[in-house]
Amino acid sequence: MKPSLKRPRRNNIGSKLKIIPLGGLEQIGMNITAFEYEDSIVVVDCGLSFPEDDMLGIDLVIPDVTYLKENISKVKGFVITHGHEDHIGALPYVLKEVNVPIYSTKLTLALINNKLKEHNLTKSTKLKEVKHGQVINLGDFAIEFIKTNHSIQDASALAIYSPVGIVVHTGDFKVDYTPVFGDAIDLQRFAEIGRKGVLAVMCDSTNAERPGFTMSERTVGHVFDNLFNEYKTARIIIATFASNVDRVQQIINTAYRFGRKVAVEGRSMVNVITTAAELGYLRIPDQTLIEIDQVKNYPDDQLVLITTGSQGESMAALSRMAASIHKKITIKPNDAIIFSSHPIPGNEKAVSKVINELSMKGAKVIFQDAHVSGHACQEEIKLIYSLVKPKYAIPVHGEYRHLTAQKHVVEELGYSNDNIFILKSGNVLEMDEHSAAVTGSVHTGAILVDGLGVGDVGNIVLRDRQHLAEDGIMIVVMTLERHSNVVLAGPDIVSRGFVYVRESEDLMDHAREVVEQALDGCLEKGITDWSKIKAAVKDALSDYVWKRTKRSPMILPIIMEA
Amino acid sequence: MKPSLKRPRRNNIGSKLKIIPLGGLEQIGMNITAFEYEDSIVVVDCGLSFPEDDMLGIDLVIPDVTYLKENISKVKGFVITHGHEDHIGALPYVLKEVNVPIYSTKLTLALINNKLKEHNLTKSTKLKEVKHGQVINLGDFAIEFIKTNHSIQDASALAIYSPVGIVVHTGDFKVDYTPVFGDAIDLQRFAEIGRKGVLAVMCDSTNAERPGFTMSERTVGHVFDNLFNEYKTARIIIATFASNVDRVQQIINTAYRFGRKVAVEGRSMVNVITTAAELGYLRIPDQTLIEIDQVKNYPDDQLVLITTGSQGESMAALSRMAASIHKKITIKPNDAIIFSSHPIPGNEKAVSKVINELSMKGAKVIFQDAHVSGHACQEEIKLIYSLVKPKYAIPVHGEYRHLTAQKHVVEELGYSNDNIFILKSGNVLEMDEHSAAVTGSVHTGAILVDGLGVGDVGNIVLRDRQHLAEDGIMIVVMTLERHSNVVLAGPDIVSRGFVYVRESEDLMDHAREVVEQALDGCLEKGITDWSKIKAAVKDALSDYVWKRTKRSPMILPIIMEA
Repeated sequence: MKPSLKRPRRNNIGSKLKIIPLGGLEQIGMNITAFEYEDSIVVVDCGLSFPEDDMLGIDLVIPDVTYLKENISKVKGFVITHGHEDHIGALPYVLKEVNVPIYSTKLTLALINNKLKEHNLTKSTKLKEVKHGQVINLGDFAIEFIKTNHSIQDASALAIYSPVGIVVHTGDFKVDYTPVFGDAIDLQRFAEIGRKGVLAVMCDSTNAERPGFTMSERTVGHVFDNLFNEYKTARIIIATFASNVDRVQQIINTAYRFGRKVAVEGRSMVNVITTAAELGYLRIPDQTLIEIDQVKNYPDDQLVLITTGSQGESMAALSRMAASIHKKITIKPNDAIIFSSHPIPGNEKAVSKVINELSMKGAKVIFQDAHVSGHACQEEIKLIYSLVKPKYAIPVHGEYRHLTAQKHVVEELGYSNDNIFILKSGNVLEMDEHSAAVTGSVHTGAILVDGLGVGDVGNIVLRDRQHLAEDGIMIVVMTLERHSNVVLAGPDIVSRGFVYVRESEDLMDHAREVVEQALDGCLEKGITDWSKIKAAVKDALSDYVWKRTKRSPMILPIIMEA
Repeated sequence: MKPSLKRPRRNNIGSKLKIIPLGGLEQIGMNITAFEYEDSIVVVDCGLSFPEDDMLGIDLVIPDVTYLKENISKVKGFVITHGHEDHIGALPYVLKEVNVPIYSTKLTLALINNKLKEHNLTKSTKLKEVKHGQVINLGDFAIEFIKTNHSIQDASALAIYSPVGIVVHTGDFKVDYTPVFGDAIDLQRFAEIGRKGVLAVMCDSTNAERPGFTMSERTVGHVFDNLFNEYKTARIIIATFASNVDRVQQIINTAYRFGRKVAVEGRSMVNVITTAAELGYLRIPDQTLIEIDQVKNYPDDQLVLITTGSQGESMAALSRMAASIHKKITIKPNDAIIFSSHPIPGNEKAVSKVINELSMKGAKVIFQDAHVSGHACQEEIKLIYSLVKPKYAIPVHGEYRHLTAQKHVVEELGYSNDNIFILKSGNVLEMDEHSAAVTGSVHTGAILVDGLGVGDVGNIVLRDRQHLAEDGIMIVVMTLERHSNVVLAGPDIVSRGFVYVRESEDLMDHAREVVEQALDGCLEKGITDWSKIKAAVKDALSDYVWKRTKRSPMILPIIMEA
């Protein structure tokens, strides 16, 4: 199909295209990039990231979109490459401030819509479906959706036509010549666009450290066949990512061939499967799917359970089964449990804990070979560059190590250092037909979401949480008489997260003496300023506790007036 | 050399050998196992483990040795397989309660002695050196030290001769036919002892999930040669484990061949290298080693820096260089930085952070191929079993998943399920010539060390720290008049780690009102019991905060009397 491309208007002399990543660099996740030309801004993706280890108590992290708010009249819409959390997850938060239409493919929009429902935003949001090969016009931009492959269906690369030239954004992608559902990546279209002359490619760097090619999703199907053959008499439980519909399709296919019923467990898994099946992205043979409550009515060798929890998430279904707190499924020695996943960096220990718990129940745990990545390795990255032949390379999607790895790959293809841009979030990369340079920066940042609070937890609160987590807190309370500062009550010391008080009575008694001495010292010196009294108490107690225990609990003096 | 083995005395009818792991199962680390026969107990290893993610603020974890204390008159000594922390690290703590001689090889004792110095325990502790091939007599036991290979020198397997038969304990080991220093593992001796008839093997499970053989340490030397060749003009920085003296030796060898000077950075690295060099385990050519302060006097291509920090430990030398807070070394684009290590599970993100930081400074970071494991893979495990041919298999050293993996390997060799024992810490495995069975259990546990405190932080304190870390704390203080309960001061609310107070004034104002209402409610109902008043305040505030924020900070009401 030939795209119905409106001829982009001529470039005004002196006007440039600005590419402004508002997140997603320096990290995996929180992908969001603004493309700006004169009075038009188009935003590609709007993802969240999951909290780092030191973000104690934080649920998720979203990008600061101050720049979009300040330029709200220019913003024409969100263009979404695919339906993973790191590309759509911030939409419900950002839409409240930047309410513009969202353009994407059918499954992607359906997954976004599930989120909007949870946040009561369906009515106020415009979702506009785009098919692969189709072009949409947004202000001075025209944007073409190009079919790619990824670990979720309906993923797209984008050809962004601007008055100064074309930018191709790959989104997250891999090259799968034999996908489970739908077509392979539209390599011909990448080549055609390349022929037109492309200004820049923004290419997925996630796997840029890995040589070779990523295997086809279909190879995992063969692994399932072999495993089902090997564990003929076992009850088979398979944990995988909720959003990987192709993986689920392959499990269903193999289950069907082996005459097994399939039950699905885990809220996010049920949601995605329901949505995908409704839209025709998942084909489930009649009478294959059973409810989780029916599992007990079938013998082990006629069952497959597909479940969440492949990353060891403590509240996910498999983790609850492993910890014997799942209400409907009890793990037993005749279970063969397949992890159809690799641990995402940071989740290794959590996954290992689940594997240990499952092993202790006598189950056979298989955690090798039943997974392939959804991201392009080095040879696939080279393929895209060789088809598109852009003037500039802008590695995206990855930590700095991944971006530099792509840079090295691109250098091997003959690109010079001057034509490769490793951007930071907030950088403004300006380009036209003749040149490209980072010319400035805009305000960006990470906003922490904790419960209902968006942005009410910041560095000071996190530092306090870290401090509390390390050594706990000692609270010193006392009531002083107005004006005279005579001690009416206290000082009392209460601690939490510090020591077993019962076994440390001696320590607490001494601590109280230390505080009293500090107070007496203040009175003798005629110090009446409460902040100085507090400081004196804090210093004395902190000093004593460190000498005695080599610990630094948070010390919080509270003075009341009566 | 023929071991000077005292003939073990005959078995008394009915007496059995007890094998009692006091730690080290269900986890990597904290290895300690008691072997008991009548009035003799010998303890193999005495290691620590590092805190799990949920052990907030804890420095290290040591085994509970109540069982040894209760049987102190029987305990003849510690027999140590090698000098890694998970085998020697708890000694300074345990020796204070179980002060018996320590038997091991020269380097192992030297590393233990370094620890004893830090704890002022050198005078009170007896260290007795044993050579490979030598046998020591400890009560009813005779113990032979057998040369093995591992990622630290002077590692030993133990043949434990008891009146009911021989138990072979491999310690941590691998089979290295071409070790960098000293001899290969003494496979002949394993075979000879096997010929005598062995009751049980306790074999390292760490790598039991991996097929094949672990590569020789020497192969890493070839990798260094290639990398030094490739990065001829760069300053080379290599991060590795402080205790891997063979790795350091190979770096020094390659540096010498390429005419580079070697500087060493990181306290633990300097300590181990100094000790190893003094004892002759490390051979440093004259004028090869330079002080870190001299680095600035040499051009990049004449330098190698060996450093700690290969696991991304935040305070280690390489991490400080990466974060630009190292006083003497500044990372620059001409640096080639080699990670001669793999991340230990749980450290992946920390390592990645350091790699990103180094990459951002323009340094080339190499983190593949320059490492081999120190633990036996499946074929090596089969080799040991095939040489020793024990009656019983007792997989040790590993999490449950690793122990079961060894079980599967041993089953492939034809062992029946009845002859394989996967023990739990505290299990008492009793055996004699005819049978073996778990007959009971003894008290064991993990004792948390936090600063100077040993065991004064337990589950309650940890739960409090976890709670504080998640959502912070709200402290409600008030002063009540004695008897009348009239409020003299307060209620005041102070929070830490909860929200930015300045941006949440409204929330805090309402919270105060909620507390006042709860207090009024108590007064109206005539409630005077302080614990009931506290409970009412806590419930009301907790309820309000959850509804408003979906968070559950710790709520701590403090009532003072005046």
